Amino acid sequence: MSLNIVVMAAGKGTRMKSSLPKVLHKLAGRSLLKHVLSSTAALQAQARIVITGHGADQVEAAVAGDGIRFVRQEPQLGTGHAIQQAVPALEAGGTTLILSGDTPLISTPTTQAMVQASQGQKLVLLTIHYADPTGYGRIVRDGDAVKAIVEHKDATSEQRLIRECYTGIMAAPTEALKRWVGQLSNQNAQGEYYLTDIVAMAVAEGVPVVAVTTADETEVLGVNSPSQLAHLERRFQRQQAEALMDAGVRLADPARLDLRGTLSCGRDVEIDVNCVFEGTVSLGDGVRIGANCVIRNATIAAGARIHEFTHIDGEAAGASVGEGALIGPFARLRPGAQLGAEVHIGNFVEVKNSTLAKGAKANHLAYLGDATVGERVNYGAGSITANYDGANKHRTTIGADVHVGSNCVLVAPVTLGDGATIGGGSTITKDVAPGQLAVARGRQTVISEWVRPVKKK
Amino acid sequence: MSLNIVVMAAGKGTRMKSSLPKVLHKLAGRSLLKHVLSSTAALQAQARIVITGHGADQVEAAVAGDGIRFVRQEPQLGTGHAIQQAVPALEAGGTTLILSGDTPLISTPTTQAMVQASQGQKLVLLTIHYADPTGYGRIVRDGDAVKAIVEHKDATSEQRLIRECYTGIMAAPTEALKRWVGQLSNQNAQGEYYLTDIVAMAVAEGVPVVAVTTADETEVLGVNSPSQLAHLERRFQRQQAEALMDAGVRLADPARLDLRGTLSCGRDVEIDVNCVFEGTVSLGDGVRIGANCVIRNATIAAGARIHEFTHIDGEAAGASVGEGALIGPFARLRPGAQLGAEVHIGNFVEVKNSTLAKGAKANHLAYLGDATVGERVNYGAGSITANYDGANKHRTTIGADVHVGSNCVLVAPVTLGDGATIGGGSTITKDVAPGQLAVARGRQTVISEWVRPVKKK
Amino acid sequence: MSLNIVVMAAGKGTRMKSSLPKVLHKLAGRSLLKHVLSSTAALQAQARIVITGHGADQVEAAVAGDGIRFVRQEPQLGTGHAIQQAVPALEAGGTTLILSGDTPLISTPTTQAMVQASQGQKLVLLTIHYADPTGYGRIVRDGDAVKAIVEHKDATSEQRLIRECYTGIMAAPTEALKRWVGQLSNQNAQGEYYLTDIVAMAVAEGVPVVAVTTADETEVLGVNSPSQLAHLERRFQRQQAEALMDAGVRLADPARLDLRGTLSCGRDVEIDVNCVFEGTVSLGDGVRIGANCVIRNATIAAGARIHEFTHIDGEAAGASVGEGALIGPFARLRPGAQLGAEVHIGNFVEVKNSTLAKGAKANHLAYLGDATVGERVNYGAGSITANYDGANKHRTTIGADVHVGSNCVLVAPVTLGDGATIGGGSTITKDVAPGQLAVARGRQTVISEWVRPVKKK
Repeated sequence: MSLNIVVMAAGKGTRMKSSLPKVLHKLAGRSLLKHVLSSTAALQAQARIVITGHGADQVEAAVAGDGIRFVRQEPQLGTGHAIQQAVPALEAGGTTLILSGDTPLISTPTTQAMVQASQGQKLVLLTIHYADPTGYGRIVRDGDAVKAIVEHKDATSEQRLIRECYTGIMAAPTEALKRWVGQLSNQNAQGEYYLTDIVAMAVAEGVPVVAVTTADETEVLGVNSPSQLAHLERRFQRQQAEALMDAGVRLADPARLDLRGTLSCGRDVEIDVNCVFEGTVSLGDGVRIGANCVIRNATIAAGARIHEFTHIDGEAAGASVGEGALIGPFARLRPGAQLGAEVHIGNFVEVKNSTLAKGAKANHLAYLGDATVGERVNYGAGSITANYDGANKHRTTIGADVHVGSNCVLVAPVTLGDGATIGGGSTITKDVAPGQLAVARGRQTVISEWVRPVKKK
Repeated sequence: MSLNIVVMAAGKGTRMKSSLPKVLHKLAGRSLLKHVLSSTAALQAQARIVITGHGADQVEAAVAGDGIRFVRQEPQLGTGHAIQQAVPALEAGGTTLILSGDTPLISTPTTQAMVQASQGQKLVLLTIHYADPTGYGRIVRDGDAVKAIVEHKDATSEQRLIRECYTGIMAAPTEALKRWVGQLSNQNAQGEYYLTDIVAMAVAEGVPVVAVTTADETEVLGVNSPSQLAHLERRFQRQQAEALMDAGVRLADPARLDLRGTLSCGRDVEIDVNCVFEGTVSLGDGVRIGANCVIRNATIAAGARIHEFTHIDGEAAGASVGEGALIGPFARLRPGAQLGAEVHIGNFVEVKNSTLAKGAKANHLAYLGDATVGERVNYGAGSITANYDGANKHRTTIGADVHVGSNCVLVAPVTLGDGATIGGGSTITKDVAPGQLAVARGRQTVISEWVRPVKKK
Repeated sequence: MSLNIVVMAAGKGTRMKSSLPKVLHKLAGRSLLKHVLSSTAALQAQARIVITGHGADQVEAAVAGDGIRFVRQEPQLGTGHAIQQAVPALEAGGTTLILSGDTPLISTPTTQAMVQASQGQKLVLLTIHYADPTGYGRIVRDGDAVKAIVEHKDATSEQRLIRECYTGIMAAPTEALKRWVGQLSNQNAQGEYYLTDIVAMAVAEGVPVVAVTTADETEVLGVNSPSQLAHLERRFQRQQAEALMDAGVRLADPARLDLRGTLSCGRDVEIDVNCVFEGTVSLGDGVRIGANCVIRNATIAAGARIHEFTHIDGEAAGASVGEGALIGPFARLRPGAQLGAEVHIGNFVEVKNSTLAKGAKANHLAYLGDATVGERVNYGAGSITANYDGANKHRTTIGADVHVGSNCVLVAPVTLGDGATIGGGSTITKDVAPGQLAVARGRQTVISEWVRPVKKK
């Protein structure tokens, strides 16, 4: 049976007070609309239709692909009006699932249950029981069947006791839906076409109306303001933290973890307070992440320790840390940093687009950019690869067992042979043969007649 | 009609266990007493009187100015005794509003409502309804009129059911107040003069006693201990966060924002977790602040990105970041840092008292102090302006399009002409003409007979 | 009367999903089992017996010493079976207190009260009243005496209303305990020996069974999963924060303090948000710790200010900061950093195994390792002590009032005499006499025919 998924994404989101269309605001690093689309990816719908309006070009550009079709709703005259626009794009027959682009955390199992309950035959409403249902549309039932959705303001005092409420999410038989939305009227105070009016039509036609009920408020929470967005962000982050802990990850404070993407963890991973993970991050067995780390698009191998205040951002190129490596505190790994096993990167050290072989060390105040560093190299404090001549980037190659002294400059392109030694304070512009000691600095002299400056008045 | 504002600020605050007088402890970066004084600034009182006692010199020095008068209460014999001391300082007639210096978040609208309700005629009590009123003085009413405040320990079991409680804040007709406090007695267990005893006097005289009720517990919470101070701090921070979000600012975690001062935000500002703002900070449209930033007294122009772990402190001189600039991570901007549009300041870079023109870059491990940097300058990794000769500070001037290599030292005072280039590892002590390449380093040599040190046993 | 303390620590903790035995997981930096053992240290038991099983070698190695005896339980056939294994190790007579190694926060006063209540005569159960007792074993009483523990699943509907529950912790007359555990049967669904079956035996024998009741849920919370561990961690951290505030410490956010060890604070100490303290840390009067600091095994003297993003880790050697010193932001102090009064350590500066005398300053991007630094030394930006020749570490000695310029390298072993000056960019390999100016750098030259590189296509 065919399945249409329609996502309403035309709203402006005035209360967001933003130039960005509401559905493009991000929750855990991903737009609200993308959340909805990805949670329904498993449903294998014949058609996925996004109804756009405010900022339509921007919204469509943001989620284009994967066979998604766009329908414009301009102007926006209500939820029923939105579905009217989508009718021509619907695949015939079967079920149409109607979701909201600003309700991002709707779950795959819930939408599956709704589609299953509809079978192209029934109108299915997603409902939830609220402890305090004030303001929500109540589900009036006759036994199992749903008789009506009654808005709070229209509800009798008896109906107001009903705690089961409509969530704004439904699944309908496609052909009936087309017929019903064609019959909607906007003869109401707001002059809008309300999709919920189809419930009465279904009841009148004898089409069964049933409810699927969720126990998880999080999946039906909509976002209309920065405050609601932040509230949902924290709920989602908490859920993610609990899922990580259930998988065995040890978190020092689940309320101070931010995961915006995918975090894969081996066994016995420990994450200290206030860490942020973005993109795709993988942590091997026994990895320990210190407090206040920010890690994006990176792979950290088993047993590595990432000390406090470490910033790793692999961007598109990725960054990798080898087994048993020690990184930080105050280290920064940038795209293309590929660190082998037991590499040490210490404080105030930046590594970019560089490969460090097993056991190489850069422990203090240093920059390694566009470099290939051999095994067991000791790269001195304050040393810099001068990889940029103001116009082009060049590569530095450092052989195994090289010892680079402190405050050196390696002017790329340059190669230091295996076992070479560079004297502290040297600026190296020419290749150094294996085993050689190279020095490039001035001779120490004493200026004896010199008098210290004195403080000017 | 004249208005007196009296703030009781004589208490020691024993439970604070501090050498600082209680009212000088800080909430959101400002003393408790300053909070009270500033929230009443809009009331345009004829007299603002602060009653001091413990640490009086320190308290008076901290809030002197703005026409505030001080009255000493020594020793401290109760709230009524405090007001007795203030009587000679009161402007005649009208209303006297009595506030507490340790209840910092009293709101302007509430105090205005109290003054309005008093009109120099009525005794006005600020009250609040507590779910659990245990321990508070209950408001006993006769219809709208207040008949008495009954202390918890003196209350009948019926009175203990009353949830409306006195907050310690009142407004009184000034002349009646003077008369009443003159009649107070200290014939009680504590031997103190209680201001609340004037309620009975007012009732006895037939002076109307009315209540203004607040729904916001935050504004009547007093601070008596570090724990209470922290509790109120978090409430206040949460309120500030909600206010920012209502204005459209997007916060990754409202529970992890600290604002101690004033934060002005343009449209589409995003602030990641765990940031601290102090003093006066302004963020332009579209500014994004990464996780774990600390920003004080700074102006960030539209579109700038402040990456994680950036520390900006303009102190008195201020610091500014231009449009579209990229700062951090691990950058530090100090007083007098004035960065033009599209400036890049990268990791482990410090900028102090320096002006950088449009497009200038210092991306890695560098220090710029007392420097003027031209457009498009590339300031190399590890380079330092030696601005201090041990006695005086000197200025470094770098023209447009200058390329400073890595690990250079620019010994100020020194000027690099437009388009000059400084070879990596150079210590520059003399001016460099426009377009010139200057190098100041040793020639690279090889020491061939050299043998590496070996590990001593 | 003799006292045995038996701690059950044989469980695997399957839900921890860890290679580490459950009781070795850490709460506030210390294993669960160590918490239990240290909270009972004050009881001065004749025997302290730990029952091990899963990961027994690892558990025993982790807590060995202090006269602790180990008994193996292999396989694990229930709590009663565990105590059966311990019987041969019990000192005769008196009381045996039975604790659980995964219930770390049991308090000393509670265990003292239990021992006191038992007097070697009574079976004492630790109980607690839960608002929702679902799932817990109920305490069925006959007046003061306990008649039975009834498991939730076995409880009548009337018994299910009982809110007093068993916590899993008991104290028993030793000789009776030995007899009772010998009579336990495993004829039950799980085929295990349950220690709680001894309650019925005691009642049958007429041995008094009494309850000691705790009001603090925290002390009876067990840890079975990473989520429970994190939950208990946050409770414990909150308790520690409250205790610090009660002692007068001012915390910007009690929910964002992590203390894993011992923190001693003088008067008027202020700690900003998101700080982590580990090991043994001491903060003198008036010390202020900025946001996002990590401090381990360090002593900070009165009036010192530790600015944001400072990392101090004294490890075994310790680290100390003198009176009125200013450290950070972005400073790192490592083991053996001993800073005198009024020392300034600024951004991107690392200090290791070095002594700095009063008033010495290293304000910018520098490394001081294995150095002795005199009073009032100014150690320039970017300067490095080259303490490691690739094989051995050597010491740098800097006399009083020395001025080291920017980007210098001091190649150890080397001594700079009092009042010496080192020119910027110098690599110093030979000692410098007092008062001398030493320079070791190339002469500045101009390459006039030089043409800038151009961007390659």
